Amino acid sequence: MACVPGSPSVVVFDVNETLSDLAPMTARFAEVGAPEHLAALWFAGVLRDGFALTAAGASTPFAQVAAGVLRTLLHGQSLRLGLDDAVEHVTTGFAGLPVHPDVPDGLRRLRAGGFRLVTLSNGSADVADALLSRAGVRDELEALLSVEDAGAWKPARRSYEYAAQRCGVTPDDMVLVAVHPWDIDGAARAGLHTAWVDRSKGSYPGHLTRPGRTVTGLDELARQLLG
Amino acid sequence: MACVPGSPSVVVFDVNETLSDLAPMTARFAEVGAPEHLAALWFAGVLRDGFALTAAGASTPFAQVAAGVLRTLLHGQSLRLGLDDAVEHVTTGFAGLPVHPDVPDGLRRLRAGGFRLVTLSNGSADVADALLSRAGVRDELEALLSVEDAGAWKPARRSYEYAAQRCGVTPDDMVLVAVHPWDIDGAARAGLHTAWVDRSKGSYPGHLTRPGRTVTGLDELARQLLG
Repeated sequence: MACVPGSPSVVVFDVNETLSDLAPMTARFAEVGAPEHLAALWFAGVLRDGFALTAAGASTPFAQVAAGVLRTLLHGQSLRLGLDDAVEHVTTGFAGLPVHPDVPDGLRRLRAGGFRLVTLSNGSADVADALLSRAGVRDELEALLSVEDAGAWKPARRSYEYAAQRCGVTPDDMVLVAVHPWDIDGAARAGLHTAWVDRSKGSYPGHLTRPGRTVTGLDELARQLLG
Repeated sequence: MACVPGSPSVVVFDVNETLSDLAPMTARFAEVGAPEHLAALWFAGVLRDGFALTAAGASTPFAQVAAGVLRTLLHGQSLRLGLDDAVEHVTTGFAGLPVHPDVPDGLRRLRAGGFRLVTLSNGSADVADALLSRAGVRDELEALLSVEDAGAWKPARRSYEYAAQRCGVTPDDMVLVAVHPWDIDGAARAGLHTAWVDRSKGSYPGHLTRPGRTVTGLDELARQLLG
C-alpha cells in the first residue's frame, strides 16, 4: 500500500511524547520534592520558549532550553536537593524513558508494509537513538533527524522541508505523526500529510489545522495506512 | 532625562501580567471546578500555541488561541458547569482584571518625566484599553498597540518593528518593559532596550538574552529611568 501513487511513502515520527512515554518524568518532580503537576508546566514552558526563540529567528538546543526552564520553575520551591542537583535529577530522566506499548509493533508493521520510517525531533538525535535502541526497534528507522541540523525548531516550515530534503522526497510524499496539535498544524502548513496520535481521548484545539487522520496509537496507524 | 541623547524616548509596555495582575484568573478555575494550578498551564499553553503559529508563519487572534487551549485543558475534567459555560466563565475573567499596585504611579511619573508611553500586546488593544481605563491611567498612554496589526505575535522581530514604525522612532529609541523573559529576549534581538519586571524575586532563564535592567515594579522603573 505504501507504493500507491498519491499516498505518502515516508512516515515521519515526532519523538517526545509521540514515541516516548513521559509519565515517569512526573515521578522525578516528586523525588526532588516539587509538586508533580509542575511536569506538565515544564513541558509547556520548554516548547513556549523554544518556539519563542524560533519566532525571533534563533535556534537553541532543546536540552539547554529544558534545563533553563526547569531551573526557573524549581527556583523558590522547597526541594529535597540543591537546585543544581534537582535540575540534574529531573533532566536525566529523559535518558531512561520507555516507548508507549503500541510503538514497537506499529513501527515493525509499517516497515514490513513498505514504508520508509524516520524521526524528526526538536530534541537531539542521540535521545531518539537511545530510546529506540532500548525498545529494540532502532533498526526499523532509516534515519533519526533533529531540528538542530535544520536551524529552526518545528513547527517552522524549514524544519519539515529539511526532513523532506534529507529523505529526497517532496513534503506531500511524507506523513507527519505526532501527539502534539502544534506539530500537526505546522506540518500541514508545510504541505505534509498528518496523523494525530490521540491515546487518551483528548480534544483537538479549534485554533490549529485539523489532522488528516486521527489514530489511537501506532498500531491503529499501521492498520489505517496498510489497509 | 528622557531627552538625553542615546537614551530611549519611548517606553513600550507589555500588557498581560506586566500591567495586569492575573491572580484572579486562578480563582476562576476553582469556580468552574477545575484545579487552580491549571491556570499557569493555560497561560503557558496559550503562548506555546501562539508562538507555534507565529513560527509556522500564521497569526491568530489571542482570544481565539486562549479559548481553544482552555477547552482542551478543561476537556475531561469534572466541572461544575458545562464545558462551553466553563470556558466562557474563565475567559471573561480577562475583562475584569486589576493592574498591579505599582502601575498607576509608575506610569504617571514616567509620563510626567517626559517619556512617551505605549503598550504592545499579543492580546487585543480593547483589553488593554479597558484595563487602563478601569485603573484611571488610560490617558497616560499615547497609543495602545496590538500585534494583531503587525501580522506576527511577539517575540517575532516584525512585531517590535511595527511598534517602532507606529511611534516614528528606531528600535533603539525604545525600551521594552515586560515580566516575560521571552519578550525581553525578542525585543533585545530586534534592537530595543529592555527592562525586566521581576515582582517576585524570580530567576531569569539562562537560555534567553538577559535584560538591560531589572526592576521590581514600574515605580522602580521610573526611579531608574528618571535618575
